[in-house]
Amino acid sequence: MSAGTGLFLSFEGIDGSGKSTQARRLAEALTEAGREVVLTREPGGSPGAEEIRALVLNGDPDRWSAETEILLFTAARRDHLERTILPALERGAVVICDRFADSTRMYQGLSRGDLRAQVDRLHALMIGREPDITLLIDMDPEEGLSRALSRTGAEERFETFGLELQQAMRRGYLELSREYADRFRVVEGAGAPDVVFDRLQAALPELFGASA
Amino acid sequence: MSAGTGLFLSFEGIDGSGKSTQARRLAEALTEAGREVVLTREPGGSPGAEEIRALVLNGDPDRWSAETEILLFTAARRDHLERTILPALERGAVVICDRFADSTRMYQGLSRGDLRAQVDRLHALMIGREPDITLLIDMDPEEGLSRALSRTGAEERFETFGLELQQAMRRGYLELSREYADRFRVVEGAGAPDVVFDRLQAALPELFGASA
Repeated sequence: MSAGTGLFLSFEGIDGSGKSTQARRLAEALTEAGREVVLTREPGGSPGAEEIRALVLNGDPDRWSAETEILLFTAARRDHLERTILPALERGAVVICDRFADSTRMYQGLSRGDLRAQVDRLHALMIGREPDITLLIDMDPEEGLSRALSRTGAEERFETFGLELQQAMRRGYLELSREYADRFRVVEGAGAPDVVFDRLQAALPELFGASA
Repeated sequence: MSAGTGLFLSFEGIDGSGKSTQARRLAEALTEAGREVVLTREPGGSPGAEEIRALVLNGDPDRWSAETEILLFTAARRDHLERTILPALERGAVVICDRFADSTRMYQGLSRGDLRAQVDRLHALMIGREPDITLLIDMDPEEGLSRALSRTGAEERFETFGLELQQAMRRGYLELSREYADRFRVVEGAGAPDVVFDRLQAALPELFGASA
């Protein structure tokens, strides 16, 4: 860790994997145990980054090129890191971030393979920080999709993220988990939230003890 | 030139140097001569870049760190380049841009020397294009400042850009003109606009003939 004594955790996973639910449960459990927890998310996570998020996500999908989008996401991440994440780590907090740079690597790499190198160079130049631990909630896309469809905006989601794309995203995440094996921990996302949370605790012996 | 058959010109200079006036006069003269001219400016110059410009320039000066600001300016420049500059060059137009990447180099390098290398690497990675010709309207800061003060917002300008800073900016621009000697042309900005415009034409034999 390059800053402070806190712990920086990120959650990654395909749409409907339950990662946001698990991130929230982890935050609650650690808060109950007396830790200072900062639960945050990307894109966004600081006032400035939320404004950049709105600029990127609103409007016509062709509004920005992939390259401009990467720059805007990196600007938002830099602000989020400086204003929210690093100060919390310096106070000794556990920072739980719903998506971080791996989401950009996976999405941009998937949409255009040649972008992945650019994403990495930009990250090295302007961010230079990875989470201490990344929890990948791994999920069969068919199950993930049916979960996502049960939420608001189901039709639109289905249009945007069809099954084939979800399968490619799952593969992309699993590849990243091998590429960054030192910090990735893969948690099986199938089953009831309680069951998944038990697995998550078992994957975090630093926080819950080896026998959790 | 890496794109099309057009000509990409930028204007740089300290506040009050008259560069915007000269850029406009050049656009008018070339339009009258039958060339297609696109007169644009940074930050901004395309609908997306103008929105990013507003995000950067409005609000508290401490709103963004220098690094986030560089990323936002680079995002705006990428959009400006893709949506305005390159399509115009491909049509064969003369693009006249009031400030381009040299402004970022000069301002950020001046505020924090260690940023200059980061600005350059980011430019190489995400922009990778320089103007064909950069016209530096060089001006004694005392004269430039008195011109700027005669315009709207004089008090505020004076607060922000005192004489000492203007002198440092002039030196910064002259250093850039030596660093990028192949594309910089230094035009003396003292005197009446007509006189400066004569000098400008003489500095552009490709457009006005060698004897202009």
